[in-house]
Order: sequence, then structure tokens, then C-alpha cells
Amino acid sequence: MDTPASTRFPSSVLREFCVRTFLHFGVPEDDARVAAEVLARADLRGIDSHGVARLRTYVDMLTLGRINPRPQPRIVRESPSTATFDGDNGLGLVVGPKANALAIEKACAVGSGFVSVCNTNHYGIAGWYSLKALERGCLGISMTNSTKLVAPFHGGERMLGTNPIAIAFPGLEEPPIVIDFATSATAYGKIEIAKRRGSKIPSGWAVDASGTPTEQPDGMIQGGALLPLGSFAELSGHKGFCLAAMVDVLCCVLSGANWGPFAPPFALRQEIPARSVGQGIGHFFGALRIEAFIDETEFKRQIDDWIRTFRATRPMPGTEGVRIPGDPEREAEADRSVNGIPLIEPVIRDLEEIGRIIGAKFGT
Amino acid sequence: MDTPASTRFPSSVLREFCVRTFLHFGVPEDDARVAAEVLARADLRGIDSHGVARLRTYVDMLTLGRINPRPQPRIVRESPSTATFDGDNGLGLVVGPKANALAIEKACAVGSGFVSVCNTNHYGIAGWYSLKALERGCLGISMTNSTKLVAPFHGGERMLGTNPIAIAFPGLEEPPIVIDFATSATAYGKIEIAKRRGSKIPSGWAVDASGTPTEQPDGMIQGGALLPLGSFAELSGHKGFCLAAMVDVLCCVLSGANWGPFAPPFALRQEIPARSVGQGIGHFFGALRIEAFIDETEFKRQIDDWIRTFRATRPMPGTEGVRIPGDPEREAEADRSVNGIPLIEPVIRDLEEIGRIIGAKFGT
Repeated sequence: MDTPASTRFPSSVLREFCVRTFLHFGVPEDDARVAAEVLARADLRGIDSHGVARLRTYVDMLTLGRINPRPQPRIVRESPSTATFDGDNGLGLVVGPKANALAIEKACAVGSGFVSVCNTNHYGIAGWYSLKALERGCLGISMTNSTKLVAPFHGGERMLGTNPIAIAFPGLEEPPIVIDFATSATAYGKIEIAKRRGSKIPSGWAVDASGTPTEQPDGMIQGGALLPLGSFAELSGHKGFCLAAMVDVLCCVLSGANWGPFAPPFALRQEIPARSVGQGIGHFFGALRIEAFIDETEFKRQIDDWIRTFRATRPMPGTEGVRIPGDPEREAEADRSVNGIPLIEPVIRDLEEIGRIIGAKFGT
Repeated sequence: MDTPASTRFPSSVLREFCVRTFLHFGVPEDDARVAAEVLARADLRGIDSHGVARLRTYVDMLTLGRINPRPQPRIVRESPSTATFDGDNGLGLVVGPKANALAIEKACAVGSGFVSVCNTNHYGIAGWYSLKALERGCLGISMTNSTKLVAPFHGGERMLGTNPIAIAFPGLEEPPIVIDFATSATAYGKIEIAKRRGSKIPSGWAVDASGTPTEQPDGMIQGGALLPLGSFAELSGHKGFCLAAMVDVLCCVLSGANWGPFAPPFALRQEIPARSVGQGIGHFFGALRIEAFIDETEFKRQIDDWIRTFRATRPMPGTEGVRIPGDPEREAEADRSVNGIPLIEPVIRDLEEIGRIIGAKFGT
């Protein structure tokens, strides 16, 4: 694979740079540290699209006052095991961890906790929240909507975000199963990579601006849409649409956020929807205390057995065989925590530019 | 489409025949009525594979004493918002509704309710449980594992069930969004239809007994496996595996049921797994009381808006355009509740045979 040239930076350097950046825009220190931690973890886990590469868009939004650096999130409605949380238009990286902590706290108290969040912004990687729940003996569910990019099944235009879902299950001796995936057939980043290489994209990834299936990256980029998981009718594209719709309703309709095509943009270059049907975007967090269902050690032993059983599956010929969800990210983390985070030139230039804005030299 | 010849029967006739069948095997009347109602609803909603066509397998299992007709289900562990439920090896059609009712009751009391169920059997259509939750102002989540039929991503053998997921969202003037889908790329029934027609199956549906992708129905039927939603790497087959794994763990590891390849068979012709790692199969039910998050009428109004907005999506050329999850089943129900349920000859013969066993003539 022709990976673009990159330079490696220690994770701690990137994290501290993010902290300074958020502080510069008036984010309180505790919040800045949490936000930076979520971004740093994405880079460590190899999810480059959701790490410091995205700092630029946060800076843009903070500069224009489109994100509130000092939000006062509040509980709008509450029951012993649920809450609706208004993020006061703060960074999703700040609001998300608070709402997730509330779900976990409720699960620790009464067995399960579910929190739907409105008036928030991009929250980083969905898996971060599920991993936090593990620290408290809970299974953590995390979902968010996002700016429209995906067509519903048999639709020809962008109507839904990539609406990811995450959940994690702890092992005893084995590392946890970490499920974290977008409900689209592919990631937008893969379309961009194909464009950079001048190659076609597979059938089933996207439609063009007329809603017609396309194998040209630019067909999708210039006003087209990604397809939902399952792609076309033959491979059950309606199921990917079902998943994205579920995420959309739990995150947005349940909380009072902007659903579907009305999700506000994350970045300056994206159009602002003509209609608003709620406040900000939405997240949805759930936590289930393992001990409320079964002995926690017994659960973890069974997960170890599950992992080993599935690893031992007879492989599909010509493939590397079955990997457990979370394996690739854990391997990236093992490498990157030692050898640093590889950043490509455009990202480094963005960070240097941010350094000039906040009066701090990037990379030192 | 060359639909096989069928004869229509009123839903009430089929339901009463099911009741008599279950009574014959010693199922208490209340339980028999609920079980028959779940099967009848599947037929009404056009999910023929899960209606009376399956009565024969229940009869076989009850005849051999492999299912307990008079279970005493019990709560094994409980918290204010959760429970683990032991189905005492009863019919899933009896155990499932009880466990689902418990989840709903808890949600009504404390906002959310989650119940994981072990020692149970096939529970019918996942969507039935989600629709029940709507009657009490709750969003209902329903999942079950099932006998192995699906390969994990990059695996070459059956390791997981088709592990369906359901959830429903009520509208005010619009009918509910009803999401109910198996986490495999296709249904086993579609492989059988292709075989009957002598046609090939699409690439991405299945592998053969050697684990190699196949386009021959018999390749899958004779020891092969279905593929997870997303199929191959290019279209994100790992995501379908993630979904099936999530269902497997929530239904089975959390409850103490048999997960993955160790799920016991539903039908006599299926092999019994060499190992047992728990009791029976597992279900997972969740309920979220809408009012615990947002005004229920406001929620329903937004769902109406959501439905109308998505219906108005510009269509992908050459398709019928966007349909809302639940539309096809509702249309089937509107037709079949008036015109009856179409049954094909092999199913009618099965029911006539059951009639002889229980001493009741089928179809009258």
C-alpha cells in the first residue's frame, strides 16, 4: 500500500498540544484534558481520522464561536436509570464524557443507565466511551449521529451520518472485545484515499450526485453519498439503513437533537442545513453493570472462552482468518505507544498553523 | 417471481390450531395462547419462516421432551432495572414474552429495564417483542441467538446464529418504525428458494464446506455457512460479525446460555453441539420508557416528521425509493388480516400431520 510519507510524534506531545489549544480558546483545564485524552486515544488506536487530524475543525468552530468553550451542561429530564442531557453546545469531547459518566453512575446504582444527549458536537471515537465503562465493571454502549453523508437504502442523496455504534466486553486473561463501527458500507476517508491514488472505488460504496451507483471517487465526493452497510438490495442494504436509523432516533429524537439530514456540520466547508429540528447533534450512552446480571469473573471467563473459540475458527481460504473486534486497534496502540503517532504532512501543517494561532510551537 | 402455489387460511384458524397443538402437549392455556399469538403475528406480518411453518419443529421437540411444556421460569439475579431470567427450558414463545414483560415493567418503574435470558428456546419474530413495548409507552429492544449458520468475518465455517435485532419507534399519525433484521447477509430461506429454482446465489451470501465463497445453493446447504452482513472485506463484512457477536454476548454470555457454535439446535435434523457452555439458547430484552427522556407526544411528532422526511428522499434511479422499516410487514398485515395467510403445500401437509397427532382436523 502506498502510504503517504509521515513523521512520528510521541502521543504525549500531541495530547499536550491539544490541551494547550483548547485552553487557548477558553476551555477549562479539566475539560481540555479530557478532550485531549479522547483525541489522543484515537491516534493511539490507529483511528487517524478522529485524532489530532481533526483538531483543525475544532479550532475553526471555536474561533467562530460555533462551539461553546465553557458549557454548563444540564440534566433536562431524569429517572433512576435514565437521563436526557443538554450539552449546552459544548465540545462533544467534553459533553460526551460527562454524559457517559452519568450513564455509568446510574448503572452502578440501579443496574443500567441510559443517557440521551442533545445540543452537543462531534465526540471523537465511539469506542472510547465503551472502554471507560469497562473501568467500572459495566458494558458500555455508545452511539452518535453526525453530519449527513450516507443515503438511506434506495435513496439517492445524503440523509444520515455515518452514525457509529460501539460496545465493549471485558475478558479475564484476554484483552476486551471492542466493537466500534460506522453503519455505512465504507468510510469517507477510503473514498479520499482512492481519489488521491487515482483508482476506482468498489461497487457498493457510493452513489453520485444523481443518486446513481458510482465507482468514481469524485462521483461521491462531489455531491454524492455513501451507501449504508450491506449496500444494495442483494446484500441487504436495508439492514444498514435500519442500523443508521436506530442510532439517529436514539441519539436525536429521544434527546431533542437534530436528526437525519438536519445534523449541523462539523467543519466550515460543509453546508448548514436549511431546517433545524432540534439542538446540536445527539449522542446516546448506555451502561449495563455486569454484576447486575451475572458474576463478573464468570462473565470474563466466558469471554476468554468466546475469544479463544472464535480465534480457532477454520479460516476462509486466502484470508488471515478470524480476528476479534478490537484486535487491530490494540495492535496499533502497542506500536504507537512505543514508537509514536505517524502524522502525514497536511496534518503537520495544520498543527503548525494552529501553533501560530495559539502562540505555541508544534512538535516540541 | 415464480411463487409456489399456496392456499389461504384465516389467521384465526391458524392461531387456534396452534393453541390446540400446544395444549395437546401439556402447555397451560395462557401460555399456549401467547405462543400461538407470536406465531400468528409472524404469518400476518409476512414473515412466513417464523409462523405456523415452524410449528412442526416445536411439535418434534415437545414430542421428544427436549422442550419443557410447563416451565417455571425464575429470576436468577435482579436489580431495580435489570434481571437475569432462567426460562426452565420452556418454549421461547412462552419464556420470551414473560421476560420481555419484566423488562417493560422495570422500564415503567425506573426508566429502563434490561433482561438477559438463558435456558430458553426459539422465540419467534424479534419484532413482536418490540411491538409489545410500544403498548406501554416504551421503546423495546429484542435480540436472540440461534443455532449456528453464519461464519464470522474471514471464517470458513458456521459459528454464529443469524442473531436478529429488533427495535420499534412509535409515530403519532404515522405507523411505527419497526426495525427487525437478522445480522447475516441474507436469510437461509433465500438459499432454499434458489435451490428450488435451480438458480445461482449472489456472491457474498455464503461459503461452502471448505470455507470458500460459493454461488451454488447446495454449496452452502451441504455444510457451508452464510456470511455476515457486509459479506466480504470490501463491503465491511467485519461489521456484520461485530453485530452478531454483540447479540451473542448480550443474549448468552450475560445470561449463562450457550453462545456461538454451542447453541442447541431448533430442529431434529440439526446436529447437537459437542460442547455445552451454558443452558439453552439466550435472549436479550430492553425497554426504555419514552417519558423518562422526553415528552411522549413530542417524540411521536418528531417520528412522524422523521418518517415523512425520509419518505421524501430523492430515490436511487431504478428503485422504488426509500421505504421506512416496517412498511413491508405492515402492508402484508393489512392484506393478510383480510384475505388470510397463504400457506404452501409442504406446510399444509405438516399441519395436517400434526392434526392427526393431536386429534384435530387442520383447516376447519
